[in-house]
This record gives sequence, structure tokens and C-alpha cells, in this order.
Amino acid sequence: MQNTNLPIAFQGEPGAYSEAALLEHFGQGTPGLPCPSFDAVFDAVEGGQAAAGLIAIENSLAGSIHQNYDLLLRHQLWITGERYLRVHHCLIANHGVRPADLKKVISHPQALAQCAGYLHANGLPAEVFYDTAGSIKHLSETGARDTAGIASRRAAEVYGMEILQEGIEDNPANFTRFQVIARQPASTVLGPVVQGSPVQASYKTTIAFTLANQPGALFKALSVFALRDLDLTKIESRPLVGSPWEYLFYVDFVGSTADLTVSRALGHLEEYATSLRVLGSYPRHRYEKEA
Amino acid sequence: MQNTNLPIAFQGEPGAYSEAALLEHFGQGTPGLPCPSFDAVFDAVEGGQAAAGLIAIENSLAGSIHQNYDLLLRHQLWITGERYLRVHHCLIANHGVRPADLKKVISHPQALAQCAGYLHANGLPAEVFYDTAGSIKHLSETGARDTAGIASRRAAEVYGMEILQEGIEDNPANFTRFQVIARQPASTVLGPVVQGSPVQASYKTTIAFTLANQPGALFKALSVFALRDLDLTKIESRPLVGSPWEYLFYVDFVGSTADLTVSRALGHLEEYATSLRVLGSYPRHRYEKEA
Repeated sequence: MQNTNLPIAFQGEPGAYSEAALLEHFGQGTPGLPCPSFDAVFDAVEGGQAAAGLIAIENSLAGSIHQNYDLLLRHQLWITGERYLRVHHCLIANHGVRPADLKKVISHPQALAQCAGYLHANGLPAEVFYDTAGSIKHLSETGARDTAGIASRRAAEVYGMEILQEGIEDNPANFTRFQVIARQPASTVLGPVVQGSPVQASYKTTIAFTLANQPGALFKALSVFALRDLDLTKIESRPLVGSPWEYLFYVDFVGSTADLTVSRALGHLEEYATSLRVLGSYPRHRYEKEA
Repeated sequence: MQNTNLPIAFQGEPGAYSEAALLEHFGQGTPGLPCPSFDAVFDAVEGGQAAAGLIAIENSLAGSIHQNYDLLLRHQLWITGERYLRVHHCLIANHGVRPADLKKVISHPQALAQCAGYLHANGLPAEVFYDTAGSIKHLSETGARDTAGIASRRAAEVYGMEILQEGIEDNPANFTRFQVIARQPASTVLGPVVQGSPVQASYKTTIAFTLANQPGALFKALSVFALRDLDLTKIESRPLVGSPWEYLFYVDFVGSTADLTVSRALGHLEEYATSLRVLGSYPRHRYEKEA
């Protein structure tokens, strides 16, 4: 169970998309601990300043965030949850500022890139800021009347600012998947291994493993899932930097390590993998399409 | 064969990393056609204004460039080559400008992000520019003495500017893979299918296919390669936006469609895939580590 006295660490300023995901996941009113970097989120969880952390792991447009996979592999933490968040970028400014007053727009580089079409169509130069919500905080502090920021609706609420336009992202199919990290595995997967019954379809497990670069190596690795009817939901290969003959794989599949079938599959995978790390089993979040 | 009267299209301004890759791939002196966007590169190749195009397909830090996979699937062009380029970011300014004179640094958001540690350590604010090489062109035109740009060594040469520091990227394991696109498949794969012999190890083939989201579907799909000892060099799954029950896969493997084994494997794959597109077979580029 989560220690409710401690906050949940997230990357960014108050009002960040990861804070919005945090509130959706843990419930409104959950205290958050803003961290300046993903490293700091891991450190806060590892050091006990936070009950858990929330990290972005992939975006439907930008792909996987390799940096956070690297951090997961470097730290001894567990993935205990996941959350999909639809990214609605808002153009936000101080109250009374009109679109015609704007000389430039500031935000995180990825948000600027995802609104590049909108900014271009409106002749608005973009300037990098370290954070989406941080850009709104900055505008609120300086009272700037010729600059807008791009951030979440929540950022406008947190800093008492005005939304000039909502949904300015060029591609509406923009969502980010977050994962929850904690010092202990999800309590629901700590119990005795479930014998015989079908795997728990309401759970997902994330693993990372390396394989020697030999024909058929991946096929053998995936056979441990296929032969047991385990359903993969993500697979990605990544050449290991400095090891041109070895590949790192990220795989997510349906089921929990508390399922006997899953624990047998992972034991089987160890026969083929040059290394294997179970990053965690956690309740599956099914993203519901918006109306 | 390539029509040598026509240039090779690339995304960015003269001096862009993709132009550097183009010159390494096709040889110094090859005429390039700078294009403002990846869409424009595809259009130039399709419309016959360019003999071929060069597009970035993945970066070792940022991952796959989904946008270019989308463009490959939308257009009827062929991948005819590949090239790995080590990304060395340079801090570039007008001649005589000293580091202490700098008030800000401009570049493409991804380059700024990849040098974030360096910029922070040197207290240099970052401002977004639409292009790496374009930022150097801009500084050269304005004669600015308080601003530097981040771009390739080649950009400094093209615009006659000074390199203040080379290799300012935070992570040295930074390389980009480019692919060549053309209206016709690589001529070397147009001949008769090679009977019996082992597959051509000096070739790679890129395919994209969709599978129904069923347990074991990917395993069956990969069996067509494993049962024929075909070596995968890349695999990535991508949830299809709007089709939560279907997945798109990108796969690269060693061999050419001129190999009988490969053509049989692809025929076999068609039995399982809900759609299959062969994007091209092309000579494999082996990235040699720098000293």
C-alpha cells in the first residue's frame, strides 16, 4: 500500500502533463512532488522523499522515451502502474492578452514541435523553455503581455492564467503513456503464485532483456510467450550502444508475475536471454477514447 | 541507375546533417536539393525534381521517426539505401565572437535538447530555430555577435563561420540512420530471384505490416523469418491510432527480395498479416566506430 503521507514525484513544474496524469491515476488532491528532471524523480523515490514516481515512457507521436528505460535499468525500482493521457496543448497567456498582442510563444521543445503547424500558420515565433508548465509559471511571474506559453489546461488553472486556445496540437492522436515507479512491487503481485487458472488479463508486465545477435534468437525468446498464449502489447528492439552484436528488447505483455504461466514463461526466457530484468507487473490501464 | 543530372533531396538547409549524410553516401560533390520538410522531400522525389531523397529514419537517442514511416506508407516510393551518421554538434558563431560574448544559442529543438547539459553548464539560454544549419545561415546573414547556433561542422564550412566548440552533445553515443528513397527499387534487386544460395548478407530489407491483436500473432509472423534463418536487425511495434486492436510493425532483416528465401518468407508472412508492404531492399551500411 502507498504511504499516504508522502507525495508522488513527477517531472516538471506544478501543472505539468505528468501532474495531470498523476491526479487522474491516484485521484484529485494527491500531493505531488515536482522534480526538475527524470533522474530527480528516480532519486526522490529511491531516497524515500516520495511514495512513488510517475514517468513518461512513450508518446504516440514521438515514440519511446529511451532515457527512462535507461533509468529503469540503472535503478532498482519497480513499475507498479500505468496511465494513458491524451495530450491537449493549450495556448495560455496572462488575462486580457489578445492573440494579436503576441510576439512569441514559449514552451518545452517537444510541445513547440507538436504545435509547429499552428504556430507557423499564425506567424508566431517559438522560443524554447525548459518545461511546459514552467513557461506558464514564468509568464505569470513576469506579467508578460506579448508572450504566450503552451501547456496543459491544468497549468492555466494552477497559475490563474487565461486559455487563448485549446487543442492547438497539429496531430490529434497525441497521447502519452506514463508508468508509476516505486521501491516495492505492486502489492497485488506479491501474493502466492496463482496455480493453473488463466493469466490475470487486468495486469500487464514490463520486461527488458538482451539477446545475442543470432538468427532466430528473438523468435526463441518470443516462443516462451506464444507457447503459453501470453499476449504481447509492446515490443521494441534497440541496438546496444557500444555492443553492435547485442540487442536490448523492451517487451510488455498481459499478465502478472503472480501467474504461474507468466513465471514459467520468464524462467523459460532466461534460457535464451543474455540478461533479463522484470521491471514490474501492474494493473493495466485501458485508454478510453474521448467522445 | 541514378540520373546524375538530378539532385538528391534532403530535409533542411545546406549544411544540414542530412546533407552531410548525403555526401558521405553518394560522394562529395553530389548536388543536393534542400527541402523545407520531409513531406517536401517525398514530393520532390515523387514529382521527379530529385533523383532520390535522403530521410532520417531513427536516432540512437530519440528513437524511430514515426513521421517518416507514415510518409513511407502513404507514398509509393522505395527504400534503396541506408547510411549511419555520427552526430557531432558544434557551437558555431561569426568570426571573432568569443564564448563570453554569447547571450543565447539558437538551433532545432532536438539539437538544443541533445546539448541541454552543455548549455545549462555554460548558462546559455536556448531559443528554437526551425533548422540546425538554418540557424547558422541566419547568424551569418544578420552578423549577430551575441548569438551562436548549434549545427554540423559542415554548416560552419558552408556559411564560412567559426566553430567555437565541437562535440557539445551530452551523450556521445548519438548517431542517426538515414534511408534513401527513390521512384524505382534498387537496381540490384530487380534481377531474377536467386535460387538456392544463402541470402545476400550485404543487403537489408525493410517491411511494415499489421497484425490482428491476438496472442501468438507476432510469433507466427516472426516464424516466417526464423524458420528460414533470416536475421532481424530491427523490430518495433506501434499501436495503430484509432484501431486499438491492431498493431503496426516495422521490421528490418538481412537479405534482399531477390533472394528466393526472402521472397518465400514474405509470401508466408502474407498468410498471417492483415496488410504487408515491402518498403525496399538495399545495400547494408555497416557503421564503423570512430577511433
